Amino acid sequence: MVDQPLWEQIGSSFVQHYYQLFDSDRTQLGSIYTDTSCLTWEGQQFQGKNDIVEKLTSLPFSKIAHSITAQDHQPTPDCCILSMVVGQLKADNDPIMGFHQSFILKNVNDSWVCTNDMFRLAIHNFG
Amino acid sequence: MVDQPLWEQIGSSFVQHYYQLFDSDRTQLGSIYTDTSCLTWEGQQFQGKNDIVEKLTSLPFSKIAHSITAQDHQPTPDCCILSMVVGQLKADNDPIMGFHQSFILKNVNDSWVCTNDMFRLAIHNFG
Repeated sequence: MVDQPLWEQIGSSFVQHYYQLFDSDRTQLGSIYTDTSCLTWEGQQFQGKNDIVEKLTSLPFSKIAHSITAQDHQPTPDCCILSMVVGQLKADNDPIMGFHQSFILKNVNDSWVCTNDMFRLAIHNFG
Repeated sequence: MVDQPLWEQIGSSFVQHYYQLFDSDRTQLGSIYTDTSCLTWEGQQFQGKNDIVEKLTSLPFSKIAHSITAQDHQPTPDCCILSMVVGQLKADNDPIMGFHQSFILKNVNDSWVCTNDMFRLAIHNFG
């Protein structure tokens, strides 16, 4: 069995940790962002852990469960990690929806933080 | 009217250029990658413009059309640009499918190249 490359281990641990926090208590998500992190949530832009957590905790649902369909990880030229997730989520009693999310992870003071986060629901006007 | 930030202008120009090349003549896509660029295509990893273009040109369809549903762009801490695209594609006579693609763009010798590229079809086992 071939060991996973380090960026895949780090990326997949991050992804698992992120959705676990998100689904159990998203007020705790501040720990993964920095004061310069960027979030684009359905096209709306936020910067800094405070604004990001305020946005995430104000989302209008009380219960949410994410399920990951596929995740990919790559090293970037600047020693960061790019992670991309395709999955499904169920918020309260809404129907299951597809979502897409991309993260850049950077090593700062010996821990991995999320500098960039982009989220979109998979809503298309098919036709 | 507020001008778009530079990273959005660069990111959206890149995205337009990429899908235009992809849909018209994907043998030309080598111009946007470097010899260390990474592509993850449906979970398969490729590195370097030659291997990437070989993969993209060997995909089993002759006609393809991408349509962009949403695109987001952010500056990264290392002066790169992260771009994420959610869209639909139609390959030959197959049904329309959703897809998700993320790019990192880096300025090298005064031009923007793609160092990281990840592609996934939006296929879920709903249930």
